Amino acid sequence: MSIENSAPVHVNHQVRLRERPTGMPGPSTWTFTQEPVPVPAKGEFAVRNLFISIDPAMRVWLNDPGSQVVHVTAAINIGDVMRASVVGRVIDSRHPEFKAGDMVVGRMGVQEYALSDGRDMIGQPVLRIASEAVVPSAYLGVLGVPGLTAYFGLLDVGRPLPGQTVAVSGATGAVGSVVGQIARIKGCRVVGIAGGPEKCRYLVETLGFDAAVDYKAGDVQAQLAAACPNGIDVYFDNVGGDILDAALANLAARARVVLCGSMSQYTTTGKVVGPANYRSLLLKRARMEGFIVYDYAARYEEARAELAGWLASGSLIAREHVLHGIETFPQALNLALSGDKSGKLLIQLAESA
Amino acid sequence: MSIENSAPVHVNHQVRLRERPTGMPGPSTWTFTQEPVPVPAKGEFAVRNLFISIDPAMRVWLNDPGSQVVHVTAAINIGDVMRASVVGRVIDSRHPEFKAGDMVVGRMGVQEYALSDGRDMIGQPVLRIASEAVVPSAYLGVLGVPGLTAYFGLLDVGRPLPGQTVAVSGATGAVGSVVGQIARIKGCRVVGIAGGPEKCRYLVETLGFDAAVDYKAGDVQAQLAAACPNGIDVYFDNVGGDILDAALANLAARARVVLCGSMSQYTTTGKVVGPANYRSLLLKRARMEGFIVYDYAARYEEARAELAGWLASGSLIAREHVLHGIETFPQALNLALSGDKSGKLLIQLAESA
Repeated sequence: MSIENSAPVHVNHQVRLRERPTGMPGPSTWTFTQEPVPVPAKGEFAVRNLFISIDPAMRVWLNDPGSQVVHVTAAINIGDVMRASVVGRVIDSRHPEFKAGDMVVGRMGVQEYALSDGRDMIGQPVLRIASEAVVPSAYLGVLGVPGLTAYFGLLDVGRPLPGQTVAVSGATGAVGSVVGQIARIKGCRVVGIAGGPEKCRYLVETLGFDAAVDYKAGDVQAQLAAACPNGIDVYFDNVGGDILDAALANLAARARVVLCGSMSQYTTTGKVVGPANYRSLLLKRARMEGFIVYDYAARYEEARAELAGWLASGSLIAREHVLHGIETFPQALNLALSGDKSGKLLIQLAESA
Repeated sequence: MSIENSAPVHVNHQVRLRERPTGMPGPSTWTFTQEPVPVPAKGEFAVRNLFISIDPAMRVWLNDPGSQVVHVTAAINIGDVMRASVVGRVIDSRHPEFKAGDMVVGRMGVQEYALSDGRDMIGQPVLRIASEAVVPSAYLGVLGVPGLTAYFGLLDVGRPLPGQTVAVSGATGAVGSVVGQIARIKGCRVVGIAGGPEKCRYLVETLGFDAAVDYKAGDVQAQLAAACPNGIDVYFDNVGGDILDAALANLAARARVVLCGSMSQYTTTGKVVGPANYRSLLLKRARMEGFIVYDYAARYEEARAELAGWLASGSLIAREHVLHGIETFPQALNLALSGDKSGKLLIQLAESA
């Protein structure tokens, strides 16, 4: 099949940041632009973007660099194409290491086509997907930043031992669902925190968690106490706020709190609220620790191999929630931020063939 | 010299908890009682208390066990003699391992005499001070719980490397002053946080800190930024609250925040406020960790030997702030809580000879 046939759009539609939002992004946050499909110069290649990854942390990139909630990667500038991780196929190349037809992954942005010199929008190397044994979109989820974040955050920072209790918030999300399943694979008691009975049922019945706590059903601290009778040995935090506080109140001695995200604070318009129960760290000789997945780049392949093995054997389940077309981006991001999604959130721009 | 001569008081004056305070302890918190000087039964010994240690953490023992701020050691019951660490001399013994004249240290309470079966008020062994090469009161400060807390908290939890920046709050206190001096001995850049120009001058001119931040002189975050141009590698926190937040905003990459106390919250009557800047842990791949000095009991002698060596060589300075007579206890505790003291706070009950 020729590339032309699978890429009927000859204009590059893009989403750019028009105005920094306060709270949830709204209609004035984005502007849609079009450009000609880019043509690579010497040392460059052009990519047809197939899947765009939508993650809650993207909201933080929209904040002013001086804002109270910032991200480890730089803020997006007004007028820039919105940053996003993308899986795409090289359609034209004048780069020695990439050729037309290669499947690649990197931060190629919320647009239908992208140009690269081997680096992505934040200067990281674009990865060529060697094996297509798994679906390419897996490189945005289980085998991408979310899965790697779950892997290193849980195993390297949290260091759970078999039989210990691992609790995770945002448990049906792209990171949380992998955290919980790895913990289960490692022989831990796994408790997921999610919103609503349907998600909680999914955690227990499909993903094999030992228990689920519905944060929409009231007193999270008491629910966690009931679900974790020996306390929480490792708490993997994706949300911050009241749920972090409820987990801190339930720590076991020498617990590890892994800070991964603070989704509850991303759209707050008030002052960020710190965890009032932080003194539990003192009483329980516990630690709370942040980490950045990029620090583990040298070990990505090791992690991807293990994750892909679990995927292949069926012990790791990766559910996707797919929207279609670049015009769904504003809605997709707000869906990610509301938590009202079921699985790794993606926008599909074209068929992957 | 006979024991009788050095102990002219034949009544045992005691301070007991009458009512749990809200905020600062007040006149209704305490009741003064008297009892006959205790006479040891078989397996017991009687102690003449010489120095009582006054520490901010004692305030936490007064809280109801269900309170939002509790301590690792149990709450004091209403009507009980107030718990305190004490140095005293055995005046009468029917215990095989202690004899009259021995100098001992343990939680013998806010009273002039105490009885022991070899254990103190919380069941810990009473320590016989083998060497009197240092003044006995040092066993309540540099060689006691405060000094050991500084030693293990800084070296084992904080793990500063030579050349790194160590910041400590409550820096003129019994713990903080030892933390800063050990950090200086270990070749770190040391920044102390204290209240008022006099204390700040003391830190720099007498204790050899590299810089001091006066929290009463306004923006602590900006002052810390100026004093720690490369960020804080180890922050040793004795106070919590806004100062903890200011330190979190100034962390270096991979910083360690050692949680030792949260003095600012001990007398709060509102809800405990968590550190709003806890997300710095994430951005800086940093950790915040609590510890409990009692976990290091097996290594106390090793630490005491090193601390005593530094004391003897003059590289460690231990200033004491001494009040006289058991009736000063209510005032002494409030002095500890207000931070308005200069050095390790003690009440002397009798001459130590």
